[in-house]
Amino acid sequence: MVIAIIGLGLIGGSMARDLRTNGFASKLLGVDQNPGHQEEALSLGLVDEITDLESACGTADIVLLTVPVSAMLNLIPVCLDLLKQDGVLIEMGSTKQVISDTAQSHLRRSSLVLAHPMAGTENSGPKAAVDHLFYGKAAIICDKVASEPKAIQLAERLFKSLFMRVLYMDSKEHDQHAAYVSHVSHITSFVLALTVLDKEKSEANIFNLASGGFASTVRLAKSSPRMWRDIYEQNAENLIDVLDNYLEKMYEFRQFIAEGNFDKTFQLMEEANKIRKILND
Amino acid sequence: MVIAIIGLGLIGGSMARDLRTNGFASKLLGVDQNPGHQEEALSLGLVDEITDLESACGTADIVLLTVPVSAMLNLIPVCLDLLKQDGVLIEMGSTKQVISDTAQSHLRRSSLVLAHPMAGTENSGPKAAVDHLFYGKAAIICDKVASEPKAIQLAERLFKSLFMRVLYMDSKEHDQHAAYVSHVSHITSFVLALTVLDKEKSEANIFNLASGGFASTVRLAKSSPRMWRDIYEQNAENLIDVLDNYLEKMYEFRQFIAEGNFDKTFQLMEEANKIRKILND
Repeated sequence: MVIAIIGLGLIGGSMARDLRTNGFASKLLGVDQNPGHQEEALSLGLVDEITDLESACGTADIVLLTVPVSAMLNLIPVCLDLLKQDGVLIEMGSTKQVISDTAQSHLRRSSLVLAHPMAGTENSGPKAAVDHLFYGKAAIICDKVASEPKAIQLAERLFKSLFMRVLYMDSKEHDQHAAYVSHVSHITSFVLALTVLDKEKSEANIFNLASGGFASTVRLAKSSPRMWRDIYEQNAENLIDVLDNYLEKMYEFRQFIAEGNFDKTFQLMEEANKIRKILND
Repeated sequence: MVIAIIGLGLIGGSMARDLRTNGFASKLLGVDQNPGHQEEALSLGLVDEITDLESACGTADIVLLTVPVSAMLNLIPVCLDLLKQDGVLIEMGSTKQVISDTAQSHLRRSSLVLAHPMAGTENSGPKAAVDHLFYGKAAIICDKVASEPKAIQLAERLFKSLFMRVLYMDSKEHDQHAAYVSHVSHITSFVLALTVLDKEKSEANIFNLASGGFASTVRLAKSSPRMWRDIYEQNAENLIDVLDNYLEKMYEFRQFIAEGNFDKTFQLMEEANKIRKILND
């Protein structure tokens, strides 16, 4: 199957690696507006050739759109216009409601599948691409009924070839869950980094003292500002809800410490420990 | 060298593993008030025998105190009283000022070394002990001048045998840095877990949707409430400072999203990205 990948970054590049290895793709076409990324993707062997949008969409059986979510809004209608008759377009953005609204009225809406692979790292660009990034992770397909069954089946086959678990949601529901389970943990990391950088004027102190725990908690603060700026914009309302809940709980925690009520902090931590059972299950 | 380990948990157990492997310890004695932990430590081969405080302190060349920081306050004077003539006691708590104040007036204060190995995981108990936990990490020795040179040298030899980097600070300075670089990242994790658990009433959603990023950010929320309760109590003042800075920055971030000022969030994230250079260096 000929697969075109538009946006040769962490997600697109990692998809390319595994789809070649598992034999799902017989040929991989790459599109990227950044000439440096084009060269890197070729020299890393992520794709067989670099081409343009018109040729990629007109040739490929499946077109994967793996660009920041603001670029999605412009590219989805363009790609749908260019798509070959039986072609399927799968967009893999981290938000869904705005994208769903934008695509809704397009004549070829049913050739589009909205999907969110719940996988990533803090790195970006073609060099960030790694093997098996998606293994065992969730692929959420949104608004299934708006896509033709053949397109959904093809997307399911692709995700299953990467050993992903396929789930279904509507776009609104997706954005609410994503705010809690993915987007906010990036903000808590960014703010932790800002707090520590602000206080520890000496970089040597941070480097010298950082343990594995700090490194793990602050890891996402290395993520791409460009990508996350767009996600905040498209999921602002849900994020405000989450952040208000988070701020309220953080303030409560702070107050218990200030009042010397450490047994209350103990209770809160026991409650928080429940995450262990869920994530280890 | 005969080493006694009082408190056979993650830190004590992991020390035991490496000190046996690298030949630093010729014999390992273990003390723990929990009979289950005594049995586990023996059956895992962490220590050669289980004994009591009196025998451990009276026999060992070095006594390692690896118990929660509230237990430190009671145990340090008892252990110093029992310590053999040339014995050295190294306490490995996560806070220092309160411990330093408590130990200050003891007749054998100079046989005590205050140290904080900056390493850990979210797990606890003898079964949590792992090899090479301390490799490349910092060991902070506090208030060096209050210990006799021979005791400091012995502690340095021990930490270097684990391939740790030895740093020196006073207790007050330690507690300030530890609040920023270690303690607060546990609180942000606990509060993130509480926020998500509160919203996502369905555990299945969290499990299904959690990516590596969320798991990494929330990992420390699995940590021991007992251990962290005591740390908050002993480092409350510094923690309030950090949490107030954190809350202020989080609120600022929230406001930029609420006002639709996404370019400001971009700037904050670019600033936060600086942590990459520091931690990767």
